[in-house]
Amino acid sequence: MINKQYILRERPVGLPTAATWSLESEPVPEVGEGQFLVRQHYISLDPAMRGWMNDARSYIPPVQLGEVMRAGSIGEVIVSKHPKFPVGSFASGWGGVQQYCLTNGDNWYLVDPKLAPLPAYIGTLGMPGMTAYFGILEVGKIKAGDVVVVSGAAGAVGSIVGQIAKIKGCTVVGIAGGADKCQYLLDKLGFDAAIDYKTEDINAALKRTCPKGVDVYFDNVGGEILDAALARLRMHARVVICGAISQYNSTEGIKGPSNYLSLLVNRATMQGMVVMDYAKDYRQAAQEMGSWMAEGRLVSREDIYEGIENFYPTFLRLFSGEKLGKLVLKVIE
Amino acid sequence: MINKQYILRERPVGLPTAATWSLESEPVPEVGEGQFLVRQHYISLDPAMRGWMNDARSYIPPVQLGEVMRAGSIGEVIVSKHPKFPVGSFASGWGGVQQYCLTNGDNWYLVDPKLAPLPAYIGTLGMPGMTAYFGILEVGKIKAGDVVVVSGAAGAVGSIVGQIAKIKGCTVVGIAGGADKCQYLLDKLGFDAAIDYKTEDINAALKRTCPKGVDVYFDNVGGEILDAALARLRMHARVVICGAISQYNSTEGIKGPSNYLSLLVNRATMQGMVVMDYAKDYRQAAQEMGSWMAEGRLVSREDIYEGIENFYPTFLRLFSGEKLGKLVLKVIE
Repeated sequence: MINKQYILRERPVGLPTAATWSLESEPVPEVGEGQFLVRQHYISLDPAMRGWMNDARSYIPPVQLGEVMRAGSIGEVIVSKHPKFPVGSFASGWGGVQQYCLTNGDNWYLVDPKLAPLPAYIGTLGMPGMTAYFGILEVGKIKAGDVVVVSGAAGAVGSIVGQIAKIKGCTVVGIAGGADKCQYLLDKLGFDAAIDYKTEDINAALKRTCPKGVDVYFDNVGGEILDAALARLRMHARVVICGAISQYNSTEGIKGPSNYLSLLVNRATMQGMVVMDYAKDYRQAAQEMGSWMAEGRLVSREDIYEGIENFYPTFLRLFSGEKLGKLVLKVIE
Repeated sequence: MINKQYILRERPVGLPTAATWSLESEPVPEVGEGQFLVRQHYISLDPAMRGWMNDARSYIPPVQLGEVMRAGSIGEVIVSKHPKFPVGSFASGWGGVQQYCLTNGDNWYLVDPKLAPLPAYIGTLGMPGMTAYFGILEVGKIKAGDVVVVSGAAGAVGSIVGQIAKIKGCTVVGIAGGADKCQYLLDKLGFDAAIDYKTEDINAALKRTCPKGVDVYFDNVGGEILDAALARLRMHARVVICGAISQYNSTEGIKGPSNYLSLLVNRATMQGMVVMDYAKDYRQAAQEMGSWMAEGRLVSREDIYEGIENFYPTFLRLFSGEKLGKLVLKVIE
């Protein structure tokens, strides 16, 4: 059996190029004692992957040159010498951008394909969903009546953030790129308002949609949108820093938020979060979100592309915005 | 009697100029029922005054053109038709940059010149001291063993922040401009280390003085120093945003902190504060700080200049850094 895998070859400056990775074909390795082999079905494509490619101190070590590109994944156990992961079971973990993953099970967990479709386990019930859940509830500390603004609102994290805020009784404004995405937020996800940052003046649009200001801003994008949201904060507002996709490929350094002194004027808090910190509570969160999904109160949407050979162009959709919901690559042939 | 007063005439772009205010001589007004007249002894000169001159939404309304420049002050009641402020008593409040202040007593409070020198009441026992006390304790949430870094460390707020942190068992690093100020932090205030931002590379100096990183950064300056501190944060660090004196006179807009994503990597919090929010606890704080002063554990230092005619050049010392400790103007003749 041959395992096609993407190997990191260069550290990109700006947007990754075709030369950033090479696609290699290697024999599937032997399974040793305490190990198991996963035939991967789906790879999770996430903005955070861009950060892991930089040789910089961060919340996890960078991917090394010559290594398989790191990614979340889900698949079926097809060979096992590990008692907890029997053949025929399904599991999710850090399988990387490849078709087969040999692992000792660290950071892998079993999933039940009868309870939810496999892609949902790497979306709403996986890292993006957990990020949304703990970010908006634990860091954003939303309460009923809050005005909540979320950027990247049609994305894997943002779409769940907004829906959870609606479930909790907040007024929710989503910022997304394009009329289709904005219509989706209003029609399918029940947001109260949507802002198309590609065509609207973001400051004017926030003033229009949040006339009394913003209690919680959940930021996935950074840059000018973060600045505009800071300018609209209410007293004691909370700003959740989850990501900064507008800045990840910048070749001119990160643009810091010029309006950060709004934190002072409004006695507001800006706090960063990393989802791994909440690992002990993932199970409880997945159960609650699963029940919201079953009740039809939480829409989980994945945008699925096919073929491991298409990893590079599909990955670029994260930054061009040409996708709706959680970006997933199907790699099983 | 003639009252010399500084009237705001122009909204400055960048550093205030000689034309920003005019010095006027007006007759001292009549004292009406429920009012009293303060003969002012000392005016408090603070960086926040620069912000009050901008026509922008902030935590208090801007000073209007044609109004007496707003400032904290302290003086003696010389005429009174107010039962709580008898003639001969001393009081502190928002007296403005003038020699006499007529007031109904709103936001004024009595002080006892026998317990502390008058200038201390507008410094360590006044707004700057209160800002330091609540900022480092309530927002910074310091605990024994924390590594605390403070910028503007030889100033009215920073010098108190660092000393309180020492009293609470922290390791304290001060950032100040010039060798004399740094020596003062080490010799007189008991800081553990001092960084001269005018001659040292700030990133290298923070690495040297905080090899394990920074738990609490108390920022009075913004700009490159804020960025350098963000780059050194430890996990769950707290950044207190108290001021941004390096940015107040910028004509190119505020420089946002490019390293703000360190908040994400380190699950850190950046929070703004305004001292007025803690008014109900001022008395308790002043008592505690007064007892520290009496015990010799807290040094209160004022840098006092004389003559209301010297307001403008003295005010500029806030931005040139040519002063040590709390900047005060003596206006009684």
